[in-house]
Amino acid sequence: MTEETEQAVPDEERDEDDAYSLQRKDVAAILYAVDIGDREKLVALMEPLHAADIADLLEQINAFDRMRLIKLYGKEFDGDILSELDESIREEVINALHPEVLAEAVRELESDDVVDLLEDLDEAQQEAILEVLDNSDRVAVEKSLTYPEFSAGRLMQREVVMAPEHWNVGEAIDYLRNTEDLPEQFYHIVLVDPKLRPVGNVTLGRLMASRREVLLRSLISETFHVIPVTRDEGEVAYAFNQYHLISAPVVDENERLVGVITIDDAMAVLDEEHEEDILRLAGVGEESRLSDTVLETTKQRFPWLAVNLLTAVLASLVIAQFETAIAQVVALAVLMPIVASMGGNAGTQALTVAVRALATKDLTGSNVWRVIRREVMVGLVNGLVFALVMGLVGLFWFGSAQLGGVIAAAMVINLVVAGLAGIVIPVVLERLKVDPALASGAFVTTVTDVVGFFAFLGLAVLVLL
Amino acid sequence: MTEETEQAVPDEERDEDDAYSLQRKDVAAILYAVDIGDREKLVALMEPLHAADIADLLEQINAFDRMRLIKLYGKEFDGDILSELDESIREEVINALHPEVLAEAVRELESDDVVDLLEDLDEAQQEAILEVLDNSDRVAVEKSLTYPEFSAGRLMQREVVMAPEHWNVGEAIDYLRNTEDLPEQFYHIVLVDPKLRPVGNVTLGRLMASRREVLLRSLISETFHVIPVTRDEGEVAYAFNQYHLISAPVVDENERLVGVITIDDAMAVLDEEHEEDILRLAGVGEESRLSDTVLETTKQRFPWLAVNLLTAVLASLVIAQFETAIAQVVALAVLMPIVASMGGNAGTQALTVAVRALATKDLTGSNVWRVIRREVMVGLVNGLVFALVMGLVGLFWFGSAQLGGVIAAAMVINLVVAGLAGIVIPVVLERLKVDPALASGAFVTTVTDVVGFFAFLGLAVLVLL
Repeated sequence: MTEETEQAVPDEERDEDDAYSLQRKDVAAILYAVDIGDREKLVALMEPLHAADIADLLEQINAFDRMRLIKLYGKEFDGDILSELDESIREEVINALHPEVLAEAVRELESDDVVDLLEDLDEAQQEAILEVLDNSDRVAVEKSLTYPEFSAGRLMQREVVMAPEHWNVGEAIDYLRNTEDLPEQFYHIVLVDPKLRPVGNVTLGRLMASRREVLLRSLISETFHVIPVTRDEGEVAYAFNQYHLISAPVVDENERLVGVITIDDAMAVLDEEHEEDILRLAGVGEESRLSDTVLETTKQRFPWLAVNLLTAVLASLVIAQFETAIAQVVALAVLMPIVASMGGNAGTQALTVAVRALATKDLTGSNVWRVIRREVMVGLVNGLVFALVMGLVGLFWFGSAQLGGVIAAAMVINLVVAGLAGIVIPVVLERLKVDPALASGAFVTTVTDVVGFFAFLGLAVLVLL
Repeated sequence: MTEETEQAVPDEERDEDDAYSLQRKDVAAILYAVDIGDREKLVALMEPLHAADIADLLEQINAFDRMRLIKLYGKEFDGDILSELDESIREEVINALHPEVLAEAVRELESDDVVDLLEDLDEAQQEAILEVLDNSDRVAVEKSLTYPEFSAGRLMQREVVMAPEHWNVGEAIDYLRNTEDLPEQFYHIVLVDPKLRPVGNVTLGRLMASRREVLLRSLISETFHVIPVTRDEGEVAYAFNQYHLISAPVVDENERLVGVITIDDAMAVLDEEHEEDILRLAGVGEESRLSDTVLETTKQRFPWLAVNLLTAVLASLVIAQFETAIAQVVALAVLMPIVASMGGNAGTQALTVAVRALATKDLTGSNVWRVIRREVMVGLVNGLVFALVMGLVGLFWFGSAQLGGVIAAAMVINLVVAGLAGIVIPVVLERLKVDPALASGAFVTTVTDVVGFFAFLGLAVLVLL
């Protein structure tokens, strides 16, 4: 919490453990200022807030208040707020801004932020924004947009601080002092060979601590990772996390330096990738946002529910094969959801671990067979334990040892199958280049439902009738 | 991919889009070297690998190969590998290392890495490691261990580069040049007042680009965030991501500077928090690792399955109330899992969005009522659509308009309840300071199962019998 933001609410009312500046009281005060149309008050209340917090505020309030706030706030509207805004309401906000305010806001931004802003807009809006940029900025932005979406080329800054590999510390320092427009934030100098290929990084800390005559070459960091401009941004974020990179040079197909990616951008991508994974696993469109309307949300969730309906109907078809048995022994209808439900849960457990391990590259060709064996064994052990429990439930609830035996056997079978399906299905999907987070859930539940009902009812017919 | 690591496998065999250096071929070659006991070859194969990759390798192979590899690798074993190793096998590896190799490995590490290493070891192992440290390092490590686990105090580095707020650029540069043991990586100088309270950050880039007589005070970064030493590391990671921090000073209860946290550590925490969330949502112990044994894995997954069994039995008890109805109309047994399953899925969708939004602080007191209303409406709209579909299925499959009407009505009821439960339950748990990721799933499924079966079978009794 910065000293400034603390002005908004007195210290004693804040939660010490909360890193977040935007409190409910602040939101209420701001909305009140909007209600009474008090521009001065609104600006005073917004002033201590970070652009990220203002963006959150705009996402949390409803569309009507959002429009009124933007109108009242007027020319104070900052380019950074646009960058921080969620894509789902960015378009709406851009349309609400006065063209002059928008132009001013966009001109403040660095070129990589403008690219990020433009990506999700329709062509007319893109044109409108590109028009207000300086010539050189516009060229830079247009060049970035030629790289594939979600690639390193879109993520990188084009401004790189570089030095020839034969320079010494003194030459580098003099160069830095005499360069007018250094990037806002940079942490390394990239050493390049005569063909502009990056050969190493020198941290600014090391540069400052060394004597002028020391060669830059002798100061390069151990950790150095070059990123092809076409690499997927998810892979870039992974590399930053795995190898503890702070910044990494980006190269084109000729291995020439074209930009640099810094860890803060990589962290934002990591966060987005996680969000996607978690939402996909739950069958929620990965574009899902809290500020989405009922209609948008319904549309995002519909496909997965439709797939689930097919799965459920498939399971019902299995049950329908055993109508006669159920009519004779109604206890089967009472107990059968237990077997299916346990299988579904065990399958989801194995599946989630597998999807996560694939994403972090912990599950590889080297250990996949061992992990499959493990999942089957885990299913077997848990299956045996719950078979015992359910066997006893069957025995004492319905007074039938045979029924207990049937549900016990079905439980073991379904938990073993669940473990197997939970690991094999995501691995196969990954090999087929289908995102396992997106598709595994439906397959695994289908398997555990069908196997669960079939094993239980099938065994019941064999044993009980 | 670094130039060095490329030596391990020829370029043309690598996946261009893969940021990961450790290929299956490498693992096979290394295991072969271990098999034939060729130490020279092993060292040559391991040399190009990053410590993080070696740790991954050790996690991927089985315990027997791991021991043999460590024995053969001997004194080459690096402290960084220990830091990168997953906690689940760290203890095993530490026990396998020759005491002298362990001592050497630990002495290489920075004090915050030693803290991270010690946290999860038993006391005897902790003592053994503390003993080999230099006096000053040991004191630093012991001091860090006095802070609560998962707090900023454990995460921070104690080495901070600071300067009095009245210094100018020249004084700061001279100080940096004359200081012997600057931290390996640092990006800011922290300005402090006479009571050692941090007042601002100056980036090294800005420092280097400014004239000697410029006051540091005039160069401080806009984004400045002070972290209390007791703050939870999850909140710290959140603040780094929200406010795009690169490094942040940590202060004690008197607001005095005691350390600094850098973004690379915050990124690692963010990654761990995500892992925990995703695993908790699936009912898998958050400590779950691919290298865990069958027994460990079984134990982690058992509790959630046990909770699910209770849920399922509860649902069965509901079904048991309608045995007579099911015996008369077996179609009820065939169709009832569909209603429950759709409710469970819709509930999980709403729940996952809510848990994620709570974690990112997007769901707050300011918008919770709007989001609840939205979830209910989404449940209603999707419920109506699927009611229509299932009504037709009921009609044509079983030739009964009444049965179709019953399943349609039950579907609407259960999807609305699922939406409501999916948002309200995690919000309430969060207010009660229970992690919603951990507990919501069980509650939501219970609600949707019970409501699903009760609504469908209850309506059937009213309408059909």
